[in-house]
Amino acid sequence: MNRTIYVIGIGAGNPEHLTLQAVAAMNRVDVFFTIDKGAVDGGATADLAALRAELLARHVTRPHRVVTAPEVPRDRDPAEYVDTASRWQLRRGMLYEAMIAEALRPGETGAFLVWGDPALYDGTLPLLRRIAERTHDQLRIVSIPGISSVGALAAAHGLVLNRVGAPVLITTGRRLADGGMPRDVDDVIVMLDGRAAFAGLPDTDLDIFWGAYLGTPDEILVSGDLPAVRDEICARRAEARARKSWIMDTYLLRRRRVGP
Amino acid sequence: MNRTIYVIGIGAGNPEHLTLQAVAAMNRVDVFFTIDKGAVDGGATADLAALRAELLARHVTRPHRVVTAPEVPRDRDPAEYVDTASRWQLRRGMLYEAMIAEALRPGETGAFLVWGDPALYDGTLPLLRRIAERTHDQLRIVSIPGISSVGALAAAHGLVLNRVGAPVLITTGRRLADGGMPRDVDDVIVMLDGRAAFAGLPDTDLDIFWGAYLGTPDEILVSGDLPAVRDEICARRAEARARKSWIMDTYLLRRRRVGP
Repeated sequence: MNRTIYVIGIGAGNPEHLTLQAVAAMNRVDVFFTIDKGAVDGGATADLAALRAELLARHVTRPHRVVTAPEVPRDRDPAEYVDTASRWQLRRGMLYEAMIAEALRPGETGAFLVWGDPALYDGTLPLLRRIAERTHDQLRIVSIPGISSVGALAAAHGLVLNRVGAPVLITTGRRLADGGMPRDVDDVIVMLDGRAAFAGLPDTDLDIFWGAYLGTPDEILVSGDLPAVRDEICARRAEARARKSWIMDTYLLRRRRVGP
Repeated sequence: MNRTIYVIGIGAGNPEHLTLQAVAAMNRVDVFFTIDKGAVDGGATADLAALRAELLARHVTRPHRVVTAPEVPRDRDPAEYVDTASRWQLRRGMLYEAMIAEALRPGETGAFLVWGDPALYDGTLPLLRRIAERTHDQLRIVSIPGISSVGALAAAHGLVLNRVGAPVLITTGRRLADGGMPRDVDDVIVMLDGRAAFAGLPDTDLDIFWGAYLGTPDEILVSGDLPAVRDEICARRAEARARKSWIMDTYLLRRRRVGP
């Protein structure tokens, strides 16, 4: 018999960002799969695990099982980012495959709840697709979209990300640090920036709209002329990271235009 | 007394894409403002108006008023896209300002329900912000994020939009038609493409993931090697547009990579 696995986007941190579709899907689930990151980051993501537990307690009325595995350790600052990430995804895939084989019975539905939107900088979907390809009996993978941290950032600042008829680039802190602000795009969203790449930009014609812990009670927002606010962001970023032992932040860099 | 206006993203077409936050916000609203596009597009967006009405009927339990104004006519194929769009936004702003002044009393909350996410290719937020700046008594503008057509497209195809550590560009059909596929980005999402710009691309190393009427019972999905499927997409696009008298479509162009 066929098995189904939902990959459910639960939003960037605000429990109210859950969609009606996500709530309905959660109530068709027999087994929720979770990864315990405690052994990797020293309990730093306990806040996130708590929110996940809160969502289950608040919205799931159906009997279900929760299966947890320890996170696969990861090199956080590799020289060869892509290769290391690929190898880590491979090991994580083996872990997921074993969890699913052990816990999900024929005809049952499993789920992974992922932060933000499964479609943006999250490895769960491709990993499950590879498992489905290797699995002899059918494993159907279904993606349920969520409010991404990009959407949460824009809403928190009351922003429209694009300007009229113009493009928007979503990129990583590493790319920004390596290549700088692209010349042909004036609106750039930066994700996965562990090292505050904005602080090293030479540009003097940029505004920044920065947000951390978006949608949570700890949310911090700073915006303004980049040279004027970069020190404030770096200070608040360092303070928050020290206090909470982890940070999740995202920002929009917007090139000011001359003329209308 | 202060007045508040919510700009609520209601998703790209699937009524289940509404978030819990959007439902809660809709139940704090005194006046829903809507624009009747019937006079402009010959009733083409009746489907969308019906979904909006369905969302109100299904989720709003509080007494409320609905205020409707006719759409501002727009030149659909202007030579100077940006200028015309700006002028149109200006006229639309005057319309909105008059509606709000007339219908929203001191202390009340109004709302505009917008397709997808208010942060992506939607003019409502900046338009209301300009009105708020001109208004003597305080007008507070609050953005409620929604599942964008980008998120709906990715979920429908089970896609992750970015590849590991790589950027994603969101752009318009016009930009793609003018500039072609960018050389430095391998994953490009195209919106607002009224003229099937993908069909004119010379590239032979692209996959396309195309979707129309995303999240609705009319949803159409086609994906594959661009040269192999472009005729099918054009034919299904033309057929659907003729049958329904309107189309909303979005797609991802993904450059195939040599090697791993």
